[in-house]
Amino acid sequence: MTFSITILGSNSAIPTLKRNPTAQLVNHNERLFLVDCAEGTQIQLRRNHIKLQRISRILISHLHGDHFFGLVGLISSMHLLGRARELHVYGPADLDEIINLQLRVSETRLVFPYFFHSIDPDKHELIYEDQRLGVYTIPMKHSIPACGFLFREKPGKRRIKREMVIENKIPVEQIENIKEGADFIDESGRIVKNKILTDEPQLPRSYAHCSDTAYNEAMIPIIREVDLLYHEATFMNDRAAVAAEKFHSTAREAGLIAKKAGVHKLIIGHFSNRYETVRDLVDEAATEFANVEAAEDGKVIEIS
Amino acid sequence: MTFSITILGSNSAIPTLKRNPTAQLVNHNERLFLVDCAEGTQIQLRRNHIKLQRISRILISHLHGDHFFGLVGLISSMHLLGRARELHVYGPADLDEIINLQLRVSETRLVFPYFFHSIDPDKHELIYEDQRLGVYTIPMKHSIPACGFLFREKPGKRRIKREMVIENKIPVEQIENIKEGADFIDESGRIVKNKILTDEPQLPRSYAHCSDTAYNEAMIPIIREVDLLYHEATFMNDRAAVAAEKFHSTAREAGLIAKKAGVHKLIIGHFSNRYETVRDLVDEAATEFANVEAAEDGKVIEIS
Repeated sequence: MTFSITILGSNSAIPTLKRNPTAQLVNHNERLFLVDCAEGTQIQLRRNHIKLQRISRILISHLHGDHFFGLVGLISSMHLLGRARELHVYGPADLDEIINLQLRVSETRLVFPYFFHSIDPDKHELIYEDQRLGVYTIPMKHSIPACGFLFREKPGKRRIKREMVIENKIPVEQIENIKEGADFIDESGRIVKNKILTDEPQLPRSYAHCSDTAYNEAMIPIIREVDLLYHEATFMNDRAAVAAEKFHSTAREAGLIAKKAGVHKLIIGHFSNRYETVRDLVDEAATEFANVEAAEDGKVIEIS
Repeated sequence: MTFSITILGSNSAIPTLKRNPTAQLVNHNERLFLVDCAEGTQIQLRRNHIKLQRISRILISHLHGDHFFGLVGLISSMHLLGRARELHVYGPADLDEIINLQLRVSETRLVFPYFFHSIDPDKHELIYEDQRLGVYTIPMKHSIPACGFLFREKPGKRRIKREMVIENKIPVEQIENIKEGADFIDESGRIVKNKILTDEPQLPRSYAHCSDTAYNEAMIPIIREVDLLYHEATFMNDRAAVAAEKFHSTAREAGLIAKKAGVHKLIIGHFSNRYETVRDLVDEAATEFANVEAAEDGKVIEIS
């Protein structure tokens, strides 16, 4: 089952020719979530061959422009391209007014069902779930209300072994029961134990997206042991004071959070324009947490 | 004296990898005007090595997103980069609310003096002037209130001949009078006629930017004999009905307007996504008006 992220923008506030501001696509089981939507995100989607209309949910972390200035343009393009399926947008309440105002003045009446879900960035709560996934907000510590997003798979069912189905001639209607843990009893009354028939369920995977935050250990209980943590690293440690003042983090602080939360892997991003290349930021984070890499526009990371 | 336009976006509504939606830079005597500002315009400026902070005036033709969705991002970047000089934005009144709302929710207090000038797109009137240039609105015929912009140089002064200044030992303080048409009288009382001292003034040049309009002969008196006309050509003539329904023009109609207005040169743009290349649109316009070329992102056109 697919669980991957595609980096659509790895820069902080100002777009450059190499790095767009924040946007990421999360693909879980071919359901596509867009996390943040900076100006130019629709072009980044196109560049990465991701069909706009396949995106069903857009999550906006906070209302600094480098996280949402591309949203109304993306919605407009979905409209102009004749979208039919629902679109759900999750974000702080003011975002609803921003979108509606711009649609109103351009006399745009969306041709598709559009739903806005107001979220409270200061709370840690479930904002979306389906059979296999829950998405939760993670409060950030920033200059305006801001949250991250935790994508956590639900515990899976046991995985039935194909060869056991054949060997024991298990009828189709029994499969679900066995996945749930039942033994199999054949027509002669012979019992085959579930443990023989199945493998352990796949371990639930998780991804935490923590953009735009000062160093904040309060998030650790929420993101503990996630498989992948995206944490902002706007500056290097020699600018720790600037980072703190602007409610951003340094690469070293991102590494520290990853270490203290015992995550499996760390991606850093939201880099300041001052860094032409980001190698040094990765090296700095690696002094605290070795399994780290940089977000780069177009990079796809599988969560395993 | 420079008078040029740089095409920053030549496409209609939806950005593609090759063509951005509408934006143009008008450089008159090194004063930079941005006309429309679609999403991605700040990146297009960067790509074309135009410094954001040199732009002093931004004119927005109407409130369809493909003409202004990049504006708040551009203003934000000017702010984040520490702009000091004034910025003047001209557009329909609702634009003010759109910008202010987005600045307010992001708690952005601009670090530079920012002025919004509300324009009435249904009127033909002077909205800006300096010593050498006037800028006027041109009412368009579109689905929402929209205007074009006419840049018209003021009549210049007579051009004094350098060799005459030397030969007649004309003192510096006399130069301006002579440029205004005065004769020169030397210390001995000898009169040198102005016609001998000067050449005719440079002819005033003009540029009309007419984006997003149905075929509309009402604009002809305003744009008559301009040196350069930019006219939208969203569709080809086989889609004239679609064009009329959406209040857009065909390439042939753009050519017809250019012909009837007796302009010197025509640029067409605002092309529909359906056209991979725009050669056919140019050919169609050329059946009515030969001196035509296509807007292409990055193209610079001198007005002479």
